[in-house]
Amino acid sequence: MTRRFKIAAIAGDGIGKEVLPEGLKVLAAAAERFNLHLDFAHFPWASCDWYMQHGEMMPPDWKEQLSGMDAIYFGAVGWPALVPDHVSLWGSLLKFRREFDQYINLRPVRLFEGVPCPLAGRKPGDIDFFVVRENTEGEYTNLGGVMFPGTEREMVIQESVFTRHGTDRVLRYAFELANARRRRHLTVATKSNGIAISMPWWDGRADAIHADYPQVTVDKQHIDILTARFVLQPDRFDVVVASNLFGDILSDLGPACTGTIGLAPSGNLNPDRTFPSLFEPVHGSAPDIAGQGIANPIAMIWSGAMMLAFLAAGPNPDPRCGEAHDAIVAAIEEVLRTGPRTGDLGGTATTVEVGDAIAARVRG
Amino acid sequence: MTRRFKIAAIAGDGIGKEVLPEGLKVLAAAAERFNLHLDFAHFPWASCDWYMQHGEMMPPDWKEQLSGMDAIYFGAVGWPALVPDHVSLWGSLLKFRREFDQYINLRPVRLFEGVPCPLAGRKPGDIDFFVVRENTEGEYTNLGGVMFPGTEREMVIQESVFTRHGTDRVLRYAFELANARRRRHLTVATKSNGIAISMPWWDGRADAIHADYPQVTVDKQHIDILTARFVLQPDRFDVVVASNLFGDILSDLGPACTGTIGLAPSGNLNPDRTFPSLFEPVHGSAPDIAGQGIANPIAMIWSGAMMLAFLAAGPNPDPRCGEAHDAIVAAIEEVLRTGPRTGDLGGTATTVEVGDAIAARVRG
Ligand SMILES: CC(C)[C@H](C(=O)O)[C@@H](O)C(=O)O
Ligand SMILES: CC(C)[C@H](C(=O)O)[C@@H](O)C(=O)O
Repeated sequence: MTRRFKIAAIAGDGIGKEVLPEGLKVLAAAAERFNLHLDFAHFPWASCDWYMQHGEMMPPDWKEQLSGMDAIYFGAVGWPALVPDHVSLWGSLLKFRREFDQYINLRPVRLFEGVPCPLAGRKPGDIDFFVVRENTEGEYTNLGGVMFPGTEREMVIQESVFTRHGTDRVLRYAFELANARRRRHLTVATKSNGIAISMPWWDGRADAIHADYPQVTVDKQHIDILTARFVLQPDRFDVVVASNLFGDILSDLGPACTGTIGLAPSGNLNPDRTFPSLFEPVHGSAPDIAGQGIANPIAMIWSGAMMLAFLAAGPNPDPRCGEAHDAIVAAIEEVLRTGPRTGDLGGTATTVEVGDAIAARVRG
Repeated sequence: MTRRFKIAAIAGDGIGKEVLPEGLKVLAAAAERFNLHLDFAHFPWASCDWYMQHGEMMPPDWKEQLSGMDAIYFGAVGWPALVPDHVSLWGSLLKFRREFDQYINLRPVRLFEGVPCPLAGRKPGDIDFFVVRENTEGEYTNLGGVMFPGTEREMVIQESVFTRHGTDRVLRYAFELANARRRRHLTVATKSNGIAISMPWWDGRADAIHADYPQVTVDKQHIDILTARFVLQPDRFDVVVASNLFGDILSDLGPACTGTIGLAPSGNLNPDRTFPSLFEPVHGSAPDIAGQGIANPIAMIWSGAMMLAFLAAGPNPDPRCGEAHDAIVAAIEEVLRTGPRTGDLGGTATTVEVGDAIAARVRG
């Protein structure tokens, strides 16, 4: 029996407003072709525009409004000229991640045919890995404060929080992914030589979970040299698991090594499906190019495909979601090979032209 | 009048023991040619060998032993198979940085002629900038602890500490460098959208110090996209200022973008000269290649040149130190162009062969 999926569509700010419609266009094409029932509900909040009118990023009942959804399809948020970044982000995206317990941030990194690689001599196939990022705790907190404010003695404490609950589940997810669906090699990002309390502890948790997956080889690497190896030896990575901050860094750097962060998608996953998961491009709202219609919509479109794959894997799923995922990824691959291309890929196409081209190929 | 400089030589662990002698060889050649008086005192501690014998990384009176020195010339420390990294590092290098108040970690990033660049199409001149890293506080602390240890409820707090004193002085140093000796463009690494207390405050301090340097243009960038831009647009950087952790990451990633971290030098500077400054390669002890005689000694040798430049700029200096610096850098440039080269640069030369070649050119 065919299920209806209810999906919240939230554009946010900046190029979020330009890429979301392209993502929706492609999803509509996939729905038509594969006879999926995707019901979209649009929300104007989680945006700085909303903040300017209401003094907060989201209405008080945002959680009720979204709780019944199967997924959230999200553009990008942030407009620092109007609202400081920490206010806009902590008032929206970071709330979703935390209050909907989207504890896995899954970010594929892949070099496509037809995309000029900034790393000399690398070919498609050389770069193909996943960053699994912890998404609810760690270095991203608003715990701490300022002492002696406004004086010469001023000092600030910022606290990071790592729980065994939060750490073990992301490590376990990464080991599962490496073991069941990948080449059984897991890189664990750390910085236990400099960050003296949390990171040695994190290493210890990785050892503990590793005991359950003896068939997976593990390589712990300090974040400094790990970023260097993304550039020098990107072919050695399979699955990389990292804390919130380190995963944030690696999942921008990885896509940069594949040519542009304009392609990189992400799933903010609640694998237990107690709350909706959220799918969004890795890139932000990009105020520098917003409003010009030149942003690359592929990260948004690929995020839509990831959303369908996630829905396809759930309990009582619609198997056609999986086929739709594959068709969208195939269409992205083809357009990357043949064009049209946006400026970040050396082309001159508009956001809409790239969206149209992918939608046309999905339609078949 | 000719001054004698007293320099502590500390090899440490792993390839530290292999590259330090090459650095000393080149400094000896420079001393001979430019008639410098460099007195070296060798110390076997700040090494994991010492730890295995004494149960601590350094003798209790290490500070007295080193305080009269003009500088410390340091190889690398850490041997995780014997001593956990946080124990070896916090017991030696991180103590020097903090107790000798070496609050600036200065790390040049430069693409040399003859070095194959991992970034497609980049030429010498395209990559030429400095990372100025805060070196005494920030994310590197041993403040915090574990709650409910060994249970399911286990959680860890790790505190970062930023003081106005520590932050302002590194920002000011970076503005001075950008203004007086560079192209007047300063990139400030931040993560104020995710790290909600310390990083917005850090941004505010950057604005405050900027007021004194209106002629310097400032670009604040979140660390995630900043790492991406190191790969995609390395030519846009001039001086980059960053917290302890972010500076650590950027100063491994930057050199990776220039071909190898085997070249990258650093100065751990106490600009006030109240304590000795420390000069060391950016790379670590590299257990994976230690003992084979194949490590690239150039980072160590270039660090020696930086040491001479620092001594040359002090009060009552010996101007020939500056000439010796230039001669060493010229010799490095020549050897990078013509070989011999170690394996990280695609060659087959040994550590000693590269050291000999540079020393011969310094001798003239
Ligand atoms: C060894 C380690 C503690 C050190 C650091 O993180 O500062 C090193 O990576 C460096 O960059 O000097
Ligand atoms: C906008 C920002 C808070 C966010 C993050 O750091 O998580 C973004 O960079 C991302 O990677 O999703």
